[in-house]
This record gives sequence, C-alpha cells and structure tokens, in this order.
Amino acid sequence: MNAAIITIGDELLNGQTIDTNSSWLAQELNLLGINIALKFSCGDSQEPVRDALQLSSERADLIITTGGLGPTKDDITKKSICDFLSDELRFDQGTYDNILALLKSRGRGMTELHKNQCYMPGSAKLIANSQGTAPGMWMEHEGKIYLALPGVPREMKAIMKPLGLGMIANRFSGEYIIHSFIQTAGCGETIISEAIQPIVDRFPASLSIAYLPSIASVKLRITAKGKDFDILQTWVKKFTDEISFEIKEHVYGFGELTLSEAVGQLCLRYKIKLATAESCTGGLLAQLITSISGASSYYQGSIVAYSNELKMNLLRVPDDLLALQGAVSEAVVKQMVRGAIAATNADVAIATSGIAGPTGGSIDKPVGTIWIAVGTRETQETVKLQLNKDRIGNVQYTAVTALNMMRKFIEKNFA
Amino acid sequence: MNAAIITIGDELLNGQTIDTNSSWLAQELNLLGINIALKFSCGDSQEPVRDALQLSSERADLIITTGGLGPTKDDITKKSICDFLSDELRFDQGTYDNILALLKSRGRGMTELHKNQCYMPGSAKLIANSQGTAPGMWMEHEGKIYLALPGVPREMKAIMKPLGLGMIANRFSGEYIIHSFIQTAGCGETIISEAIQPIVDRFPASLSIAYLPSIASVKLRITAKGKDFDILQTWVKKFTDEISFEIKEHVYGFGELTLSEAVGQLCLRYKIKLATAESCTGGLLAQLITSISGASSYYQGSIVAYSNELKMNLLRVPDDLLALQGAVSEAVVKQMVRGAIAATNADVAIATSGIAGPTGGSIDKPVGTIWIAVGTRETQETVKLQLNKDRIGNVQYTAVTALNMMRKFIEKNFA
Repeated sequence: MNAAIITIGDELLNGQTIDTNSSWLAQELNLLGINIALKFSCGDSQEPVRDALQLSSERADLIITTGGLGPTKDDITKKSICDFLSDELRFDQGTYDNILALLKSRGRGMTELHKNQCYMPGSAKLIANSQGTAPGMWMEHEGKIYLALPGVPREMKAIMKPLGLGMIANRFSGEYIIHSFIQTAGCGETIISEAIQPIVDRFPASLSIAYLPSIASVKLRITAKGKDFDILQTWVKKFTDEISFEIKEHVYGFGELTLSEAVGQLCLRYKIKLATAESCTGGLLAQLITSISGASSYYQGSIVAYSNELKMNLLRVPDDLLALQGAVSEAVVKQMVRGAIAATNADVAIATSGIAGPTGGSIDKPVGTIWIAVGTRETQETVKLQLNKDRIGNVQYTAVTALNMMRKFIEKNFA
Repeated sequence: MNAAIITIGDELLNGQTIDTNSSWLAQELNLLGINIALKFSCGDSQEPVRDALQLSSERADLIITTGGLGPTKDDITKKSICDFLSDELRFDQGTYDNILALLKSRGRGMTELHKNQCYMPGSAKLIANSQGTAPGMWMEHEGKIYLALPGVPREMKAIMKPLGLGMIANRFSGEYIIHSFIQTAGCGETIISEAIQPIVDRFPASLSIAYLPSIASVKLRITAKGKDFDILQTWVKKFTDEISFEIKEHVYGFGELTLSEAVGQLCLRYKIKLATAESCTGGLLAQLITSISGASSYYQGSIVAYSNELKMNLLRVPDDLLALQGAVSEAVVKQMVRGAIAATNADVAIATSGIAGPTGGSIDKPVGTIWIAVGTRETQETVKLQLNKDRIGNVQYTAVTALNMMRKFIEKNFA
C-alpha cells in the first residue's frame, strides 16, 4: 500500500516556508502501514501539479495534496484535480453555509474570494475543517484515492486527526509497519554500522535498519514490515535488544529521547543537582538542558563565563592559573567545575572552554581546541577535542559531547 | 532559468527528517535569479529517483540532488545518475586520498564502506567538501546541469557556499536580480505593510517587496529584476532608503544583519560591556550573543539563574523580595539587571524571568507571563509580556524582544 504526497505553493519552492505537513502525514500514514512512495512540491500553477498527479497515480494508491485551497490562492489544486479526473467544479451550498457561519463568528462578512471557495469537484466527498474555510476533498478514480487538504498545518491536522486518517485506515487494511529507535552519542555512523553488521546480517527479510546521524550522535531506526503484527513486534524487540546490547556504551536511550532528557532523567533518579560553567559553548548547554520542561527541579543554572573576569570572580579560577595555562586548558576547566559547584550548590557540573573560531586561534591552540570537564567537587573527568567545523558546528559538537560525558559520569559514579 | 531539486532518503519520506536543504537551496538560487520549478523527495531506491530525474530534465535546466551519498547509503544517487546519463562509476584516486587524510586527522582508518565512496561518475567534475567524505558532483548532459550533493546540511553548504553557487552563477547569466533587505524587530507584518503602502504604491514595475516574518521580527526584501544593472541599483537604493526612513524606529539594520550583531556593533561603537541574567530564556540570550564571532570583546557573560538560590547568591536578589513578589515580577528582573552588572562589571545588562510553560502557571501568573528588564546600574526599563506560544516559542520571542529592548536602550542612552 503506497501513498504519494504533493505539496502545493510557491512559498515551498522559493524557500520561504519549510514543509512540515508531509513529514507529519508520513508519520501518521506509516502507523497505518502505508508507505510514502514519492513526494513532490509544486508551485501555484497547473502544469507541474498535473505532472505530479500523473506520476503519483502510476506509483501510488493514495494521492494526498496539501495547499492551493485558501481564499487568496488561485484554486490551482481544485482545477488541476478536476481536469485530471475529468470532473467539474460545482457550487456547494453546504460549504457556503459553513464559511458564512465561520465568518459571522469572527464578525466578518463574505467576499468574492470566499465565494470562489464554495466550488468543489462534483465527485468529491467533503471532510469538515473545524479550523478554516477549506474542507478536505475525498475523490476516487480508477481504484485510486485522491485527498486534497489545505496547506495550513493547523487546518490540515484538523481534517486528518478526527476524520481523514480514520477514513484511510478503514479503506486500506494490509501491512503493518513498526519502527524502533536506538539513540546513541559519542561514536560515528561507520563504527556503529561495522560493530552491529553481524547482527544486521541475521535480520529476517521483514526487517531493515537505517542510520540517522546528527551532531556527535547517531539515531538507529529498525523497521519491520509485514502482515503479522505480533511477529513483527517480536522481531523488532529481539533485534533492538541485541543491537543496543552490542553497542551499549554508546546507547543513551530509545524512542525519541534526547540527550538532555536522558541526563535529566538520571538527575531525577539519583536526586542530583546539576550546574554548568560555559565558556565556548556560550549558553548552549544551558539552553539544551532548559529546553526540557521540568528542568528547574534538577538544574541550578549556568555561569556563562565569557570573560576571564567572570571565570575569576564567579568560578574562582585563580588569575595565575589563567595567566600560566590559558583559559583553554585542562586545569581551568577542572577548576570551572569546582567553581560552578561552589557557586550554585550543585552536586555535579559540566565545564567547557575552547576556541570556537573563526578567530582566536594560535599555533599552540588552534581554532577548534576545546577542553571539557565533568564531575563533582572531588573528582573531575576531562577530554580535549580538536574540531574542524565552523563556529556553530564546533559549539554544538562540544555541547553534545559534554552532555554525553555527564551521562556516563553519572552512570559510573551514582548508579 | 529553472531548477529542480530532488531530495533523496527514506528518512525524508517516513517523516523522521524534515527537509531544510531544499529551502536553503531555493533561497540561494533565487538570489541568482533561478526559479525552482519542481521539488521531489524520493526514498533510497532507483526507480523513483530515475522518474524524478526524467521529469526534472523535462522542466529544468539545473537539476540538484541532495542525499544518498553517505558511507552507509546504498549509493542510489550515483548509480541512478550514471544510468540516467549513460555514464559509468570509476574509482577516483583524489577522493580516496581526501577521505584517507580526513580519517587520519580524526585518528581513524579506512573501511570497505569508505572505499565504496571513492567511485564517481566518470564525467563528474568533483567539488570539494571540507566537512565530510562525499564531494559534490557536477555533470553536464544534453545542455542540462546535474549537481549531486550530500544530504547533511553542513556538508551540502560547505560545498555550495564557497564553490557551487559561484559555478552556477558563472554558468547562467541573463537578467539581473538585485535584493535589498531591511531588518526590523518589535512590530508585526501588518502594521509595517500598512505604514509603507503609500511608498510601495509608487514602485516601478521592476520592483517588488516581500515580508518575511520570523519570531518578533520581520525582514523586508525589496527585489529589482531587469536588464539594466545600474538602473535597478538606483531604484533599490532609493526605495530602501525611503522605506527604512518611514519605519525607522523598528529598523535595526540592513542585509543579513542579525539582532545580536546589531547589539554587538552598538557595544563596540560605544565601548559598552554587556551581561545577561537569564531565568526563563535559559541561556538562549547568551547563545544568541555568543553566536557572533568576536563577542568576547564586549560580552562578559551570563548568569543563567534557573534556581532562586542562584538569583539570591549570584544576582543578589533579596529572599524577601522573591517571597513577596515572586521570581516572575518587575522588581526581581530590575534587581537581576543590577545584580548581573555588579557580578560581572558590565555597563549594561538584560534580565528575563517568566513562565515558559507548559507547566508552572497559576491564576495570577499564567503560562506565558514574562518580565524583561534592560538597563544600567542606575536606570532600568521593563516590559511585561503575556505570550501564548509553546515553551520554545515563548523563550525565543522573549529573547528577541529583550535584545531589541537593549538595542533601543543603548541608542537612547549612549548615542
């Protein structure tokens, strides 16, 4: 069972809008066992929409369009679909009444643009949109389903969540698709894939794996596809367990867990208060940690000591140490950990100091030289990185690596 | 001059990765006067990639693919392009040497997977990738250009920014397109567009304007398109001046300037040291300010006082004030400004305190209640926001608003 998604709108092609509809639809359809075979984006003109409909109808059983239905759009979608399905636009009184009621509730009247919206393909079954004026349109032609949805994500979901997805599910019952995710950090895609290759070689035909790398971390996705839900679940569980055991030192969690959440859960579990002392990460560690709702129950805060003055005054780094070793040194990040703990009453702290670039490097300490320390008042562990990304890349890599070090430190010392 | 973009990867079709490459490419190509005619996303298999190449070659002169080139990918892209262009994969010693050197610098060795990456379409001109192992591939066939890029955004940009875009620009010259950008903050799109409509009404036919809103800010883009470069430049300059004068209190800069850069430039000009004291923004202010290379010459740092303990100990907020007024109050953010200045020896400081949500609200102070203060030791200006976005949206809106307040404060008090 395959689907195609066609997103329509000039704003998607000139880069001013990032399409999030199709990823939401893909995730929801995946849960129903429906694969996306192909995805298109077209501007607001008929020819490419027709091309996309043609190719989609050859490759997919369900063709979903989003966009091109609003009052200021040129109704490209409806005209293109009508032409393609040899259908005609007809005035729909129900839509007219709905739009009139919606506008009244907002204290506004009907305009010509709104009236244009009331013409619908004659064969379309309309699906109510509680959030806007354009309903969803369900059409069938030569065994294929065509579903046209508005482009505003809130409206698209208001059609699909209560009604559209259920209509699709009722219509197609077939294969299941199950995903399982293993979250890893601190190790590259290639090394992980080589380590687990012997396990992947034993996958049954219904299973596949994908490596989804991001900065200093790799998400593994194990996918099972087939008709027997229980067997698929068993396979996915068995191989998720085997793989995560094989690379257990790199695994920080499962599902959609982030590294900040993993660290937060460890802090909650062992009743640990966390603080950070940031130089080169410049607040990013604090931001990652506080992006988790509820972080205030374990996170004391951060001293973003961008100047040496702050390192001395707030983190108690001695000025002779800064003069002798430089701010980017093992001794300084270790003292930053102790200083942050003293200033914030935390149990553990993370400290970073480095040269993120593009300026500030020297022969001894080129751009990309970064020291990280994690630990308690008594013990600190350190690492030196030599990175070659741009400023933002260096900072992000440092922050993720530092969070992962803290995760491992807590697991080793508090578990 | 038309282009097509083909993004390749199962992760784009199952909704697990949101494609940002194509919007970045579209924006950059637009600046060169190149329209995107069509956009596809295909999974990691040859048939849909071939379909997409076929349709693209019928509608576009430049066909760009992203993705499908990494070490664990199945090299779908290279094989599909070779088949489509009747080309063959050949071992490329230069790529081998580059990968070997890159791996050595990371202390790692070559694997079989890496060796597979060294086979390139025989006709391809390779474009260096400073951030990864897969170079860009530039191929020409029957008057069309095919450009294959890796899918990791950092790597894709590392190929396009220094070399790829220039190669494309050199290749196609026709009409000139000139853009001018006016950066505004603190005012919505509707109010700005109403204020400048009389000026826009006087635009010559070669000029157009677009409003590009983002959080708490709007970028105006004035575009001129035509054959006479000098005339276009004159028009763009004249109307950019007129418009920015009309809304001057909202304009913080031109071109690609960010608000953090604008604040940084003011600090440099008036020799002001800046600090921040953040509660609800949780380090985002620090991160925005330190994302600018050279920020260390005016930015002292941030105290991210997530706990009341830190507000008392490091920012000298009296405990009875916290008890009486609560952490989210005007009196507390004013004291946070004074406390941050005292702790960091800065001249000016920004402070934020609020309830970002989704939890933590009360009847008196619902989620989205946020106080901001900016000022010196002697004078502080404050504002109260009542926001209704999600956690991240509330934090971002607060940070941008706070930076804009600091910009206006410096302009008023130091200029």
